[in-house]
This record gives sequence, structure tokens and C-alpha cells, in this order.
Amino acid sequence: MSTADLVELVAALPDGAVLTDPDLTEGYRQDWAADPNAGHPMAVVRATCTEDVQAVMRWATEHRVPVVPRGAGSGLSGGSTAVSGGIVLTTERMREISVDPVTRIAVAQPGLFNAEVKKAAAEHGLWYPPDPSSFEICSIGGNAATNAGGLCCVKYGVTTDYILGMQVVLADGTAVRLGGPRLKDVAGLSLTKLFVGSEGTLGVITELTLRLIPAQPPASTVVASFGSVQDAADAVLAISRNLRPAMLEFMDHASINAVEDSVHMGLDRNARALLLAQSDAPGAVAAEEIAAMVAACEKHGATEVFATDDPAEGEAFTVARRSVFPAVQALGSLLLEDVGVPMDALPRLITGVEDIARDCDVLICVVAHAGDGNTHPLIVFDPTNPDEADRAQRAFGLVMDLAIALGGTITGEHGVGRLKRDWLPFQLGEDVMELNRRIKTALDPDGILNPGAMLK
Amino acid sequence: MSTADLVELVAALPDGAVLTDPDLTEGYRQDWAADPNAGHPMAVVRATCTEDVQAVMRWATEHRVPVVPRGAGSGLSGGSTAVSGGIVLTTERMREISVDPVTRIAVAQPGLFNAEVKKAAAEHGLWYPPDPSSFEICSIGGNAATNAGGLCCVKYGVTTDYILGMQVVLADGTAVRLGGPRLKDVAGLSLTKLFVGSEGTLGVITELTLRLIPAQPPASTVVASFGSVQDAADAVLAISRNLRPAMLEFMDHASINAVEDSVHMGLDRNARALLLAQSDAPGAVAAEEIAAMVAACEKHGATEVFATDDPAEGEAFTVARRSVFPAVQALGSLLLEDVGVPMDALPRLITGVEDIARDCDVLICVVAHAGDGNTHPLIVFDPTNPDEADRAQRAFGLVMDLAIALGGTITGEHGVGRLKRDWLPFQLGEDVMELNRRIKTALDPDGILNPGAMLK
Ligand SMILES: Cc1cc2nc3c(=O)[nH]c(=O)nc-3n(C[C@H](O)[C@H](O)[C@H](O)COP(=O)(O)OP(=O)(O)OC[C@H]3O[C@@H](n4cnc5c(N)ncnc54)[C@H](O)[C@@H]3O)c2cc1C
Ligand SMILES: Cc1cc2nc3c(=O)[nH]c(=O)nc-3n(C[C@H](O)[C@H](O)[C@H](O)COP(=O)(O)OP(=O)(O)OC[C@H]3O[C@@H](n4cnc5c(N)ncnc54)[C@H](O)[C@@H]3O)c2cc1C
Repeated sequence: MSTADLVELVAALPDGAVLTDPDLTEGYRQDWAADPNAGHPMAVVRATCTEDVQAVMRWATEHRVPVVPRGAGSGLSGGSTAVSGGIVLTTERMREISVDPVTRIAVAQPGLFNAEVKKAAAEHGLWYPPDPSSFEICSIGGNAATNAGGLCCVKYGVTTDYILGMQVVLADGTAVRLGGPRLKDVAGLSLTKLFVGSEGTLGVITELTLRLIPAQPPASTVVASFGSVQDAADAVLAISRNLRPAMLEFMDHASINAVEDSVHMGLDRNARALLLAQSDAPGAVAAEEIAAMVAACEKHGATEVFATDDPAEGEAFTVARRSVFPAVQALGSLLLEDVGVPMDALPRLITGVEDIARDCDVLICVVAHAGDGNTHPLIVFDPTNPDEADRAQRAFGLVMDLAIALGGTITGEHGVGRLKRDWLPFQLGEDVMELNRRIKTALDPDGILNPGAMLK
Repeated sequence: MSTADLVELVAALPDGAVLTDPDLTEGYRQDWAADPNAGHPMAVVRATCTEDVQAVMRWATEHRVPVVPRGAGSGLSGGSTAVSGGIVLTTERMREISVDPVTRIAVAQPGLFNAEVKKAAAEHGLWYPPDPSSFEICSIGGNAATNAGGLCCVKYGVTTDYILGMQVVLADGTAVRLGGPRLKDVAGLSLTKLFVGSEGTLGVITELTLRLIPAQPPASTVVASFGSVQDAADAVLAISRNLRPAMLEFMDHASINAVEDSVHMGLDRNARALLLAQSDAPGAVAAEEIAAMVAACEKHGATEVFATDDPAEGEAFTVARRSVFPAVQALGSLLLEDVGVPMDALPRLITGVEDIARDCDVLICVVAHAGDGNTHPLIVFDPTNPDEADRAQRAFGLVMDLAIALGGTITGEHGVGRLKRDWLPFQLGEDVMELNRRIKTALDPDGILNPGAMLK
């Protein structure tokens, strides 16, 4: 790759779109996984429109240069880690949205934050449900590329459930429209769904058509403390057996204390586990659901149960829950897990993680979207202590092994990225890996799109 | 293909699995689209398990014999029409199911009827929502292969929203497991979603892992008559602007009368349009939703509005709605449309279909999942009248052209099959067709699986 070639790309794009100054490109080398081995990109392109993205992909295909699509870089699996000699293609400048209240559909460019999509919908009394904890700092394009989850998924589903269509630029620069503003459409293969969750390996999403729903009533909240992880896990199963809570989150002892250290909510520091549940059922039904959740917690040995129908008070607890990642980060470097299991294996997963923490002699804080069986064991370590760093790495692998052994997944919502790539074959098996590769090769024969992410 | 080769296949399968007697194979040549040009299969295989399906696919790949997967043959687009010299592979003998009430998950073999899945779930107080009108005569495997819709989709989503995983046999006989009993799982490409709606062109589904939800409260029902199609369509938009009805169906004048002829419900024979809406909101909220629906109908000129909270009475109207296809079939041969449009184009679609009926001088009855913008114009013709049959064919194409012109789809839920294949490129465009073909070729390089369905 010669400088002359890059000049060609610069010429094809608007002024200022291409950054090569290392001081400027530095901020685009890593996502939140902060991979110390992140590459040094040849350039960062800040695309302003679909045509810019096409220009990059055409050029990249011609010169066989790898392209790493990037949203807001809040990813936790190294999906947008830069590749040396490659291009980082960021959507941060593609920030338009329009909302049609009659059809309840939004058309958004990928660089908009999730929170901004929610806000635009709310202006019309509508709601875009998916709510990753990172909603204020992650892009809607990144959400689509990772099929992001969040707190309300347990009742309202994940990102793929709200994507009706998209525009996507393929490896060779062709821009295609998949799906569209139709609530039902089965014409041709389910390609929209295939691109959701493809982690930038099949194409660059340049526009999304999103389904919105009417705004829900404000939520009522239950907070319950437990003397054991098993009790809390049993309460989760009891609640989800008959109810559809609008949120059902779990925090373990270490998470509770990390949060308390940073936000001082008055959580019970002695509790071994805490559940946070909500109902947004309409009218008097919310009170019935809350009563049933309280009863389930009490039946399964909750040491303290608090319920409120004050939305502000409920939101304060939700904010506390969302602050677990940053709060635990104050304790050291993190290896962030995202393993999920069938619901009935949740107790075994959580207690198994406790065993791994003990065996590896590392601190593991567990926070979970419990109602989905999706947990985030956060492995804390001191990077200046090589032995501890090794033990943390070992625990990281053991947690995934455990999830797989329990019939679970190595990633419920964060994606495989580069961090978990080596474990993917153990979950999927060789035949399914081969199926993934066949599709990757069919759509990106030169392997230009996000090489090294998800698939080897 | 020699008889010796078929003997090989017979030997690889259980006794009685292979039918070659034309009297017996005749019943497997067509689906409900009743294509008069359906081929004559070399044999029908009634598989009993995944291994049988693997044996068929291995043999078919070796001998380059086309295989048409078949569920219950209730399809409306010729997706399971037999191919001459090929194998029809039916799942009708694969009928097992197990339900786990703790994880709220069912594992079902593909040949089970949708109604049987619902029943098995109901035995545990659980609900499998997708409800094609054909639920008593279509298989769950066929539902997955077509991503079937139905009446409750407007609130509860379509088949893909309830499929967590599957086992699928690929063209070469490899059996793979995709997804599984995990509520969230983003490990690898979204292959489960890709196979849903693939109409038997990518693999044969031999097992499904289904998500169930707690049973809903019984529904309350609104039936409203209108003096014009436009009024009814406006009421649909008004209702779906702020509410999530559990059903929102439309019948035009001709459908109302065809149903009245056959089931005698006392529907208003003079009405130009009828809406059937339901709320299954819990407790007192249902009454509020029903009141809002009634008000929307009245505001938009309904000539008669009837509401009931008696579930049996509501179900009687639903049965009437479901009987539209058979009732209209009493009037002549049918060409069944399934076009969908963005919600705000619904009035233009319905009035446009009226124009086409007039121009082509054929009867078109319109029934619609109105809340989804998905309509079924049913073109009635006398097959012994070649001129009328021609005009019906012309109308069939014109309705799809109209839907495409309105930004819609040629198929909202029935699939492309063989009937609509020639229109698919007009909706998708050449680049997206090419994307479909690349994936088809990557997974079925010899073109053995359901050749001629969906893609040419
Ligand atoms: C504090 C915190 C809390 C979090 N909580 C959650 C949570 O609750 N649920 C959850 O699911 N995630 C969560 N995450 C992870 C992260 O926010 C999500 O994965 C998010 O979807 C990433 O969006 P992004 O815009 O930051 O994408 P990036 O990190 O920039 O990229 C993520 C992946 O998507 C690809 N990509 C991005 N944009 C595009 C595009 N336009 N076209 C094609 N590919 C693209 C990238 O190549 C990469 O593979 C959390 C992260 C943090 C830091
Ligand atoms: C009266 C009536 C009402 C209807 N109402 C609706 C409705 O409301 N909504 C709706 O969506 N549909 C409706 N349909 C259409 C039809 O019932 C659906 O398309 C249904 O999903 C087909 O299921 P089946 O088992 O009959 O499949 P078939 O007709 O046998 O096959 C349909 C397609 O799926 C493929 N297929 C079947 N089984 C498998 C398998 N195991 N693996 C791979 N591919 C397979 C076939 O190759 C074919 O392409 C209706 C049909 C009738 C007759």
C-alpha cells in the first residue's frame, strides 16, 4: 500500500473525512475491551453518507485493505479493534433520523446513539425498546451489528426484533436495501436478520428502518436482597414461570458493594445477591404483578424486599444497576464475560462462577440479565501483576467452558469480536463453524470486512 | 436415475418410508395453491427422524436428485409443489414434542401441526402465539420454513420471533444444530434466523426449539361495519397509532358475503368493510382498550359497532374470519395474494385492488391482517373460462405491481414459492437477488434443495 493509493481514497471523500495523524487515529484503535494488542490503522475514515462508505469499500477491495467498521466504540469484545495497516471506518458523523408516527417507524443513520433514537421516538409518544446499559454511548448501527440486548429485553426482545430493514454496503462497495418499512415481509431469504449480529463481518450498515411501539406506562419496581445466590436464582425462575417482568436483573455481593462504593444507594452491603425487577403492566395490573414478584422473592428466602411505584425511585435503582461496569472498573482491569445459559441452569452457572473465582484466586463480580439467563461475570485483575493477569485469563476461559458445558453460550449480547473468537468453535462445533465461513466467504470473498472478528 | 439407485435409498430407510405407487404419491404433488403443472415425483419419502432425512439428502446429493421438503402441504405459494423426477420429503411422521415449563421452552419435531404445539403448551399454562389461519392443518416445520404469520402477530410477532434454535439437515446430509434453548445468544452469524423463511431452499428442518410465553387473558372483541373501505382503513391507522390490539383484521364486502353464505354469523351484508379487533390486555385495561377501539371506529364513520367481552362470542367471529379462504373457494378457483405495504399505504392498496378488479373484470375478495398492512386479495375465477382465467392471471400480477409501487412486498407471510418467483426480482432488485443467490449457492451448490422455489 503506497501513500499514492491513500491519496486516491482521500480524493474520493469529503474534506476532513480521512484522518492519518496518529494523535487523531489513536482514539479509534480500541473499543471498551481495551485490547493492548490493538493494531495501528493506516487511516480512520469518518464517513458522512452511504456513498462515502461505498467509496471506502470499493477502494479497499481494489487494494485488498482490511476495513474495521466502527460505531461508537463501546463494544466489549474487541469487535472494532483496529487492524494494523487497515482502515477504521467510523459512522460517528452519520447522525440523521426521521420518525413517522403514523406507521410507527423510524429511519436512522447508524451513528446516532441509542439514547438519541429513544429520544426521537419519545417526541412522538413512541418507544424504541432495546436498552443496552451503554445506551447513552453506543450507536444504533453498533447495536444492529451486535444484536444488542439490555434490561427490557426479557419482556420486549432484542435489537433484531425491532429492525425491519437496512441499507448495507457490501465488501465490494455495492449498496443494497434489505427489508423496509413493512411490518411483515417474507420475500426472499431473511437477509435483514442475517446482517443483524454480523459484527461488521458481512457489510457496513448505513441506514436502519426501526419498528417503534407506543410508549409504555411508567414502571413499578421491586428490589430484593438474598442471603444466598441460590435463593435469588430460585426466585428468578419462580418469577419468570408465570410473569413477564419488564426487567429482571441480578447483582451479586461484589457488584452490590462496588456500586455502593460509587453511587451510595443504600443497597444491603451484606446481601449475597440482589434482584431488581419491574412491571410496566397497565393500570391496576402493575400492582398485581409487583405483589406476585414480592411473594416469589419472599417465598425463596429474600431477607429484605422493597417495592415502589414511584418511577423516579425505580429509575434510581436501574441507574445503579447500569453503573456496575464502571463501578467495578474502579477496582482494577476487567475481563468482561457475557455468558448465557438455559434458564434452569442459571443457579449452576452462578455458583460455578463462584467456584472458578475461588480456584483461580481472582475477584469475579457477577451481574446478570437474570430473566434471560444472560450473565456478566466481571473478572477483576491487576494488570501489573503478571501472575494475577494469567489467573484472570484462565478464569475467563473457564467461565466460557462452564457455560458451554451447561448448554449455554459464550456470548448472549456483546458479540464474539476478537476476544472470544477462539472459543466460538467449542460452542458451535466444526460443522456450524464451516456454515458460518461459507456465508462469510460468499459475501466477502477477499476477507476485507473486519478480518479476525468473530471468525478466524 | 435407475431403479437400482432408488433401491439403495429404500434400503437406507425404514420399511414403508418410501412411496412410489402413483396412487399414493398423488396426494403429495401439490399444496393448497393446487398448481395444475405440478411435477410427478419419483418417490415420496416419509421420514421418521433426522437420520432418515440425512440419508435422503446424502443419496440425493450423490445422484443429483432434487428434493422438495414438505410439511402438511397447506402452503399457498406452491413452495412444496413436486418436481418431476425428484423426491418429495415429507415430515408428516415426525411428530414428537416436549415442553419444559420451567424454561418455557418446547422442543418439537417439524411434522406436528401448529395447533398441536399450541395444545401441548397450553397443558402447562403456556402459549405458543403464532396463529396462521391454517393452524389446524399446517406443520410447525412449514411455519418455520415460511416464517408464518397469523392473526395475533400484530401484537405478538411472527414465527421467527419464537424460534430459538433448530436442527437442520443441509443439502449434503450434514445435520447441524443452530441456536438452542437460550433466550439470548449472539455467538456466530444469525443462522437460525436465516433458515427461518428459507422455504426449504437451504436445508430441511428436523427439530425446532420454541420459546413459549405465559398464557394471555381471554380476549375482548370489537366488530365494526363501515360504509367504505377508506373509512375502515382510516380506523385501522387510528387504532394502531396508540394501541397494540391483539388482533386487527379486515374483510371487504365480498368476503363478508362469502362468509355469511357459509357460516351465517349475522354479519352486515351491506357493509363495504368490516373490522375485527381484539384486546387481551389484563384486568380492567381490556375494557379501556376496547372503548378506545370502538371510539376510533365510530370517529371514522363506522355504521355499526359491536363489542363483547365474552371470549366464546369473540372466538366465533375469529372463526368466521378464518373461514374466508374456504368460503371464497366455494365461489370458484382462487389466485391467492399476500401483498403487504407500509401502514400508511393500506387505504391506497385496498382501493387500488378495487380498481384492478374492475379493470380486469374479475371478482377480488379482500381480507387482511390490517394491523400489519398485510392483505390477501383473493382473485376468483372460473378455470373453464380461459378468458376469465387470463384476466385473473393479469390481475394477480397487477396486484403485486401495485404493492411494489406502494413500497410494499409481494408476500407478507405465505412465501414466494413457485407462484411468485417471477415477481421477486421486481421487488428486490438485481443486487439483492444476487445476494440471495450467493447464499443459496454457498449452502446448496448443486441446487438440490427445492429447486424452482423462491429463486430461479
Ligand atoms: C458500560 C457498558 C455497558 C454495556 N451494556 C450493554 C448491554 O446491556 N447490552 C449489550 O448488548 N451491550 C452492552 N454493552 C456493549 C456495547 O455497548 C454494545 O455491543 C453496542 O451495541 C456497541 O455499539 P457501538 O456503536 O459502540 O459499536 P462498536 O463498539 O463501535 O462496534 C461493535 C461491533 O459492531 C460493528 N459495527 C459497528 N457499527 C457498524 C455498522 N454501522 N455496520 C457494520 N458493523 C458495525 C463493529 O465492527 C464491531 O464488530 C455495554 C458496553 C458498555 C461500555
Ligand atoms: C386456509 C388457509 C389459511 C392460511 N392462513 C395463513 C395465515 O394466516 N398465515 C400464514 O402465514 N400462512 C397461512 N396459510 C399458508 C400455510 O398454511 C403456511 O404457509 C404454513 O406455514 C405452511 O405449512 P405446511 O406445513 O403446510 O408447509 P408446506 O405447504 O408443506 O410447505 C411450505 C414451504 O415450507 C417448506 N417446508 C415445509 N416443511 C419444511 C421443513 N421441515 N424443512 C424445510 N422446509 C420445509 C416447503 O418446502 C415449502 O417451501 C394458510 C393456508 C391455508 C390453506
